[in-house]
Amino acid sequence: MIAAAPGVTASLELRARLADLYGAYDEALGEGEWERWPGFFTEECVYKIIPRENHDAGLPVCVIEAESRAMLVDRVAAIRNTTLYAPRLVRRLTGSAVLRAIEAGNLHLSSSFASFQTMLNEATVPFLSGRFYDRVVENGGELRFAERICVTDSTLIPTSLIFPL
Amino acid sequence: MIAAAPGVTASLELRARLADLYGAYDEALGEGEWERWPGFFTEECVYKIIPRENHDAGLPVCVIEAESRAMLVDRVAAIRNTTLYAPRLVRRLTGSAVLRAIEAGNLHLSSSFASFQTMLNEATVPFLSGRFYDRVVENGGELRFAERICVTDSTLIPTSLIFPL
Amino acid sequence: MIAAAPGVTASLELRARLADLYGAYDEALGEGEWERWPGFFTEECVYKIIPRENHDAGLPVCVIEAESRAMLVDRVAAIRNTTLYAPRLVRRLTGSAVLRAIEAGNLHLSSSFASFQTMLNEATVPFLSGRFYDRVVENGGELRFAERICVTDSTLIPTSLIFPL
Repeated sequence: MIAAAPGVTASLELRARLADLYGAYDEALGEGEWERWPGFFTEECVYKIIPRENHDAGLPVCVIEAESRAMLVDRVAAIRNTTLYAPRLVRRLTGSAVLRAIEAGNLHLSSSFASFQTMLNEATVPFLSGRFYDRVVENGGELRFAERICVTDSTLIPTSLIFPL
Repeated sequence: MIAAAPGVTASLELRARLADLYGAYDEALGEGEWERWPGFFTEECVYKIIPRENHDAGLPVCVIEAESRAMLVDRVAAIRNTTLYAPRLVRRLTGSAVLRAIEAGNLHLSSSFASFQTMLNEATVPFLSGRFYDRVVENGGELRFAERICVTDSTLIPTSLIFPL
Repeated sequence: MIAAAPGVTASLELRARLADLYGAYDEALGEGEWERWPGFFTEECVYKIIPRENHDAGLPVCVIEAESRAMLVDRVAAIRNTTLYAPRLVRRLTGSAVLRAIEAGNLHLSSSFASFQTMLNEATVPFLSGRFYDRVVENGGELRFAERICVTDSTLIPTSLIFPL
């Protein structure tokens, strides 16, 4: 269940709707259905993958940075058509999201994640872990991410980062 | 909370009942109470552990395959009485399950998992990760697995696979 | 969602309150806000980190043992002021907690966890995994841990154990 931080009131219905958003997101990425991924975001949005070191120091360099759904669509096209990479599976596990604040229609949530990479004919190894910082909004009758900042614990990325987190 | 895929309606009560099934399953395996494991399945059931490579190519070879609760009971007997293996703990972590479809009394769910193995006097290492594809049904007043397919990301199994996932 | 074991009745409201406790705990530790940590416990409480080997054999030696909230506050002071350690991030992931029993106002829950450590300029590696055994009570209008026993699968701790689990 989506948890609410102390002092934040969240109805069971809102919790269920948020659980559905997070569940569907994890499901799409868990199945490698990258084409579904941009649809979880608003048209204007921010999606970043940034190491904790840069994030906390206010340094802007990201591993991935997108400022619109169209850029996410472009990223999917890159995965499917233009990026050259060794076959792999990345398995994501996410912790329960906590609704930290509701401000002017913006739902602020955070959660932890860990991921594991399996290259062809190799054993599964830890990939990236870290925290998601999300801003979720009502958008056309659905909840969507207006912002998802993925802050990774490590600055090092084993082999390379191909798929979204 | 069990999440529902877009277009699938799930009451809070159904979500709670499913959470209880998944929670009890994870608890039994987390405690090593293997004797409780077959009870989560219907008498006629399918339980498989199969690498992603074989699963996606339609190749039938599994690491474990059972076609009835009785075969699961047999498996437990093997763990307790006949299999020879070095002592180990396997810690399973499962992501939120998503209810993908409800068809003719069958609840179709999927979720991600990762597991970690600890051999005696050794550090904890990644074991198998992957996806569960489940069919859950009402059975004698309870929700039970009629089918659980565990698709592992890796084809390689560190040391060996003793316990169910 | 917090799950209830067979035979245990838990209203959706109680499940939500428990989810909020577990979520807030994970959030505080996920953010490294150690000062918030003692507040999740009752004034008289038990917090232990103990290897499975000792736990199951009834041997009392723990890696960490505290018998009051004041000792937890002391532990936080040690992390902040007196302990010398190489910089690191520990990422915790917790599975769904299962409410196993309600007895005389005590809520007994258990859950699985895995954690991952990232040292400066290194890749993320598995840290400790294991099980939480909790006793939660109503305390001043809030749910708090009267007892949290963290049983680790491994007896070995990579580098050292600085932060709570």
